[in-house]
Amino acid sequence: MTERALPHVLVVGGGFGGLWATRALATAPVRVTLVDRTNHHLFQPLLYQVAMAGLSSPDIAAPLRHILRRQRNVTVRMDVAREIDVAGRRVRFDGGTLDYDYLVVASGARHAYFGHDEWARHAPGLKTLDDALQIRRHMLEAFEAAERAPDAREQAEWLDFVIIGAGPTGVELAGTLAEIARHALPQEFRHSDPRRSKIHLVEAGPRVLPSMPATLSERARRQLERLGVSVHLGRAVTAIDARGVELGDERIDARTVLWAAGVAASPLGMQLGADVDRVGRVRVAPDLSLPSHPDVFVVGDLASVMHDDKAVPGVAPAAKQMGAHAAAMIRNRLAGRATRAFRYRDYGNLATIGRMAAVVDLGRVRFSGAPAWFFWLWAHLFFLIGFRNRAVVMAEWIWSYFTYQRHARIIVAGRDERQGRAARDLEPEGQQPDSDA
Amino acid sequence: MTERALPHVLVVGGGFGGLWATRALATAPVRVTLVDRTNHHLFQPLLYQVAMAGLSSPDIAAPLRHILRRQRNVTVRMDVAREIDVAGRRVRFDGGTLDYDYLVVASGARHAYFGHDEWARHAPGLKTLDDALQIRRHMLEAFEAAERAPDAREQAEWLDFVIIGAGPTGVELAGTLAEIARHALPQEFRHSDPRRSKIHLVEAGPRVLPSMPATLSERARRQLERLGVSVHLGRAVTAIDARGVELGDERIDARTVLWAAGVAASPLGMQLGADVDRVGRVRVAPDLSLPSHPDVFVVGDLASVMHDDKAVPGVAPAAKQMGAHAAAMIRNRLAGRATRAFRYRDYGNLATIGRMAAVVDLGRVRFSGAPAWFFWLWAHLFFLIGFRNRAVVMAEWIWSYFTYQRHARIIVAGRDERQGRAARDLEPEGQQPDSDA
Repeated sequence: MTERALPHVLVVGGGFGGLWATRALATAPVRVTLVDRTNHHLFQPLLYQVAMAGLSSPDIAAPLRHILRRQRNVTVRMDVAREIDVAGRRVRFDGGTLDYDYLVVASGARHAYFGHDEWARHAPGLKTLDDALQIRRHMLEAFEAAERAPDAREQAEWLDFVIIGAGPTGVELAGTLAEIARHALPQEFRHSDPRRSKIHLVEAGPRVLPSMPATLSERARRQLERLGVSVHLGRAVTAIDARGVELGDERIDARTVLWAAGVAASPLGMQLGADVDRVGRVRVAPDLSLPSHPDVFVVGDLASVMHDDKAVPGVAPAAKQMGAHAAAMIRNRLAGRATRAFRYRDYGNLATIGRMAAVVDLGRVRFSGAPAWFFWLWAHLFFLIGFRNRAVVMAEWIWSYFTYQRHARIIVAGRDERQGRAARDLEPEGQQPDSDA
Repeated sequence: MTERALPHVLVVGGGFGGLWATRALATAPVRVTLVDRTNHHLFQPLLYQVAMAGLSSPDIAAPLRHILRRQRNVTVRMDVAREIDVAGRRVRFDGGTLDYDYLVVASGARHAYFGHDEWARHAPGLKTLDDALQIRRHMLEAFEAAERAPDAREQAEWLDFVIIGAGPTGVELAGTLAEIARHALPQEFRHSDPRRSKIHLVEAGPRVLPSMPATLSERARRQLERLGVSVHLGRAVTAIDARGVELGDERIDARTVLWAAGVAASPLGMQLGADVDRVGRVRVAPDLSLPSHPDVFVVGDLASVMHDDKAVPGVAPAAKQMGAHAAAMIRNRLAGRATRAFRYRDYGNLATIGRMAAVVDLGRVRFSGAPAWFFWLWAHLFFLIGFRNRAVVMAEWIWSYFTYQRHARIIVAGRDERQGRAARDLEPEGQQPDSDA
């Protein structure tokens, strides 16, 4: 087959960076293999809504091979990358080894606990659909546990929540949780009152949404407090256990702690033989290739790139632009042309907080409140992949807006490790752990 | 509080039996507590569509406390029943003990492996949403594994499926799988051809859908074979391992085996001090109470009830009728009236097979094919709880019908134990198992 003679581009990771690189190679004279450890591309900006039971997993995810079914030069492979051999130009996966002529590493980032990995079990983070379902389960089971709590103190501990980190994810989680406790649940409980929930948002830095201009941070903080969130600024977490968090000499009792504070780049970056920054991101050349291996490109959250003396942020538009740029540079190389430096086009920065509450920074134009919220809604609908997802998510949002309900309040997928696991392991023989009570 | 003085009815299980009992007590002079180990009522007749990636979990489930939010005499509690003390009139749960004046046990049934519990890991069954997500994962990952299989033999083993048991669930799974392999997936794979999947449906008895009249069983068999399913009748499974099943001296190689063969009643039934039948169902008095404890009722799949010398089948309409009957008998007792025998009203029997393929038995009227399929669709839409679910499921079905697509082809919630677990456990330190590749 002559096709085999075409250069092989291997793309590791099917997030925004990897998928946009793959698409931009559609008409290039190459074979492309896109490998991801999941079977889907995830629209990460709406992941918090899956965690908060407003959307279902398939609403914001689509199978990679379905998205790419008509791009005939692509093979999609669900597999886990283990080892990158830049000298030998090959990557070892669980399911075998693949050689490449060009490699695009787009394996992204993961939440990190600043060296306190033991916090992970008490404070789950949010990067994948599995994470989102775990957070959803923690959240819903906390209200259930409050309802059957034997005393007021334990009930309060179940009703209270701490979210660590006031970047966009922390702000979205805190605002949505406050709405759920105030509006979605109250009439459904008999022994506890979800309206008495306290939602604490803890941030080590001096303001919420640190990537925003200070005036918008301040407006976001006020909107959060109006929703009922207690915002703790300049307070670093010093300990987390099953019953709460410590901020130096202050303690907040809460059985549910969510982590939205730190990220660390995918460990694959360490295997490229290049410099990495403090959180493991690979310092790439201006054209996004490795200085020592021009056949290897790094894009998305795994790449540490400067533009106009500022670090390019770890957001979806930057990852898409980098993916497309890496693809264009591969085409340049194949055509014998020089590569050029990546230029980040910053279209703006937006964050949502809750119903009618958001902030938008478009550089010259800044606004907040209801107009920002509508702007955020339409921007996110517009960028969702697939007409079907757009229609479904829009319908969900309209329904939720008028009913205050969240349709995905279904606990599935495992059990909350915080309760009952020990008891369940002692089940009478023959009783299956998943059978209905 | 005077309310506390009202008799306390404790309902264990929020399936059709327990939920209908609870609803039928809405205006009774009682306090009701409904306990389930999950937080939702599940519309089990459509569970196979969640397993086959056609519907999302929240489409066919609703939080029990949301369904019952306006019924003020009910407390919903998410908890796991451990021990029933019929003499002391109390039930011990993980989260504490509850006393009762009347008890309704509606804890249902679970799939069972005829004494071969070791088959469970190779052949998952389908009773809960967690089961459905596991089967979905097995199914989708099998096609992924076929795509990266190193040789033709292994590829064929991943493409082939065995479904054990040709009752309604087995027939639904086999027919849907055949459609997915033939229509939904083919254009998306490059190294494997899902159309070459073989779907084997294995039944120990002499015909499919044994609860149907023989003529409809035969029509169902022909419809299955037209969809491409190989139907093996009168063949009992003698062994199951990770690579296939044995039927006496015949072997079918297939890495994915699904179990739709046997049920066993919830083990709670054993604690009632009453007679149980071969599969653990409790033999109740004609009024559905326990002969020795008239304050205890057993309803739904856990109850063994005769009507007109025939066993009442373990189907949703029977469970609903039993739940409502138990509630009526509790009201009779409270009013000092006698109880009466349960009478099962059999409205008919229907089973779906695939696109335009189903069988319907309404007693005097029997039909199959497209009319039966439309009848099945409307009947199931009609009985779904909530306008929202009806609208969403109808939209999903219309969309799937025209596109041949299944929107929920998203692998979440854990990993397939059959592949990669060992490798994943050897991940380099710091790499999180769920991070995107």
